[in-house]
Amino acid sequence: MNEPIRILGISGSLRTGSFNSGLLRAAQKLLPEGMALEIADISKIPIYNEDINSAGQPESVKKLKVQIHTADGLIIATPEYNYSISGVLKNALDWVSRPPQEQIFSGKPLAIMGAGGRMGTTRAQHHLRQIAVFLNMFPLNRPEVMIQQARNKFDANGELVDEASRQEIKDLMIAFKGWVERLRS
Amino acid sequence: MNEPIRILGISGSLRTGSFNSGLLRAAQKLLPEGMALEIADISKIPIYNEDINSAGQPESVKKLKVQIHTADGLIIATPEYNYSISGVLKNALDWVSRPPQEQIFSGKPLAIMGAGGRMGTTRAQHHLRQIAVFLNMFPLNRPEVMIQQARNKFDANGELVDEASRQEIKDLMIAFKGWVERLRS
Amino acid sequence: MNEPIRILGISGSLRTGSFNSGLLRAAQKLLPEGMALEIADISKIPIYNEDINSAGQPESVKKLKVQIHTADGLIIATPEYNYSISGVLKNALDWVSRPPQEQIFSGKPLAIMGAGGRMGTTRAQHHLRQIAVFLNMFPLNRPEVMIQQARNKFDANGELVDEASRQEIKDLMIAFKGWVERLRS
Amino acid sequence: MNEPIRILGISGSLRTGSFNSGLLRAAQKLLPEGMALEIADISKIPIYNEDINSAGQPESVKKLKVQIHTADGLIIATPEYNYSISGVLKNALDWVSRPPQEQIFSGKPLAIMGAGGRMGTTRAQHHLRQIAVFLNMFPLNRPEVMIQQARNKFDANGELVDEASRQEIKDLMIAFKGWVERLRS
Repeated sequence: MNEPIRILGISGSLRTGSFNSGLLRAAQKLLPEGMALEIADISKIPIYNEDINSAGQPESVKKLKVQIHTADGLIIATPEYNYSISGVLKNALDWVSRPPQEQIFSGKPLAIMGAGGRMGTTRAQHHLRQIAVFLNMFPLNRPEVMIQQARNKFDANGELVDEASRQEIKDLMIAFKGWVERLRS
Repeated sequence: MNEPIRILGISGSLRTGSFNSGLLRAAQKLLPEGMALEIADISKIPIYNEDINSAGQPESVKKLKVQIHTADGLIIATPEYNYSISGVLKNALDWVSRPPQEQIFSGKPLAIMGAGGRMGTTRAQHHLRQIAVFLNMFPLNRPEVMIQQARNKFDANGELVDEASRQEIKDLMIAFKGWVERLRS
Repeated sequence: MNEPIRILGISGSLRTGSFNSGLLRAAQKLLPEGMALEIADISKIPIYNEDINSAGQPESVKKLKVQIHTADGLIIATPEYNYSISGVLKNALDWVSRPPQEQIFSGKPLAIMGAGGRMGTTRAQHHLRQIAVFLNMFPLNRPEVMIQQARNKFDANGELVDEASRQEIKDLMIAFKGWVERLRS
Repeated sequence: MNEPIRILGISGSLRTGSFNSGLLRAAQKLLPEGMALEIADISKIPIYNEDINSAGQPESVKKLKVQIHTADGLIIATPEYNYSISGVLKNALDWVSRPPQEQIFSGKPLAIMGAGGRMGTTRAQHHLRQIAVFLNMFPLNRPEVMIQQARNKFDANGELVDEASRQEIKDLMIAFKGWVERLRS
């Protein structure tokens, strides 16, 4: 198979200079051969309201659905807000999981990473894994990338400069490539 | 103490005809003496972005903060989307938990209820309880109001008509009154 | 591939007449072609103590380790005690996950089912899924077999007689066969 | 009120030299005035089996039930095994929560602490909090004592020597005293 594996990245934070968006940019630079990573923009997705959904999904949601549909796998970089994933991220997942085409997540391999404080987003990641059960995504177990004390690991431009963390992301993407290939066959 | 206990209700769904908003309206009618329940409007709260927060919180967030600050307790009616609370609800909690005055939730008694499908929002309620640990809220344990097969328990106007469910809400509000009083002293 | 897929079943309850042991026996009778299901006996496994483990694992643990090692996948039938899996089940998993050969679970496909009360063990199943992340097992997402109101679905001998539940187990085993084959390749 | 507040401590690990048992011993030495801490012995409690329970509970369980019943609050020191609490601890909780007198936990204030590896038992603590909902215990939210990299914080005799950790436990016990008093009134 010569086509590269196409991964879609989603960041759970909209802040310019977001550490989690920084993790995705780092991943883009650290990909193994034969893998491509596009980063989604969820900043235009409004607050979910089923009445709006029934009337027609916003363009930003339709676009994200197409991106997910055509991807071979997803990587989500999640912050931890209040011991869970961000409302921003959950809101985007809620929109995409709604009719029409609510099964778009189903069967997709999923990689998870996160940059946070003392616990490195571990609680948020477990909430995300529970959500993935309903969506029928297949999360990779290892390595778990949980960047603790993120504040010390990025430069002033929001780029990940900590070498150990960069290696963790590199290892994650290699493992994820193997996971996508294993599930594909 | 002659002042009534003032509770603020938050629904995790914005849909007109939302079952969870219906639970809050039912609770309003089933309150014990000496308790008042105001229902918050979170429909105007935009998607959270820390850059916006730093520049100044939206009026809708400021208003919610005042409502929470002046309430003796909170009751949250949560739907279950994708095995967790809604992005809508999480997004509102994220805004309120941000500086300035990010400790507004701290020490507040919390009651939880939910209307959903086969499992009656039980998974969402446990995620919410984990979030409450960080926010330092004190959730009531019992009774747990988890309305299963909600579709059969509301009328065409979205009002809760199932008698057993109404009794559960009545019992919840009585227990919550006791909980607020116990924590207050 | 002509060898049957060999699955090891573990019940989280030791009670004679346990509903969850009954689910495993039902699964044995409802297997698709090319699949074999052996049921483990964890009743002899003592309470875990690391000092004992260091001195040498009990025969009951060694036997379970061999059974897991040689199985192509695991199916766990879990009761829900106090909103989590049983101590009995957790204790067995703790023993097996300890040195030597603590990676025995790693890479194994996992199916989960449970019989319980109002919520059908859903909370226990999610705890088990979190445990599986650490053990690096690959849990099947769907179908989720959560037998609610189990008391009405078994006969006096502890055999599952409810037809809808039997069909769910049949569907689970077919899906699990596919999952094991997909991960094997 | 001149009687001291009587707390019962339970460690989730049976190992001689267990870090979590060490946390409880440290707490005993760091108690505020007017508080007493007894440490339970759960090492004699066998694996739970409902058939045995129906025939009569073991003496070790009966003794623990009396200890819990007469305590004003509980403090549990939990290790994290496989991203959850230990089977040892869960098994003890399962026994105590069974008839007769299955409501013994109900209404008890609960403090939680834990010593572990990279994440300091945070995942185990959240599972324990979910269990506490069913048991109707009232867990203190803050401070959360999660001793990371425990290996470096105890001496050769298993005594907690890290000053920052000792201060955390001291703060926890002061806060817990206030929590017990607040709930008592």
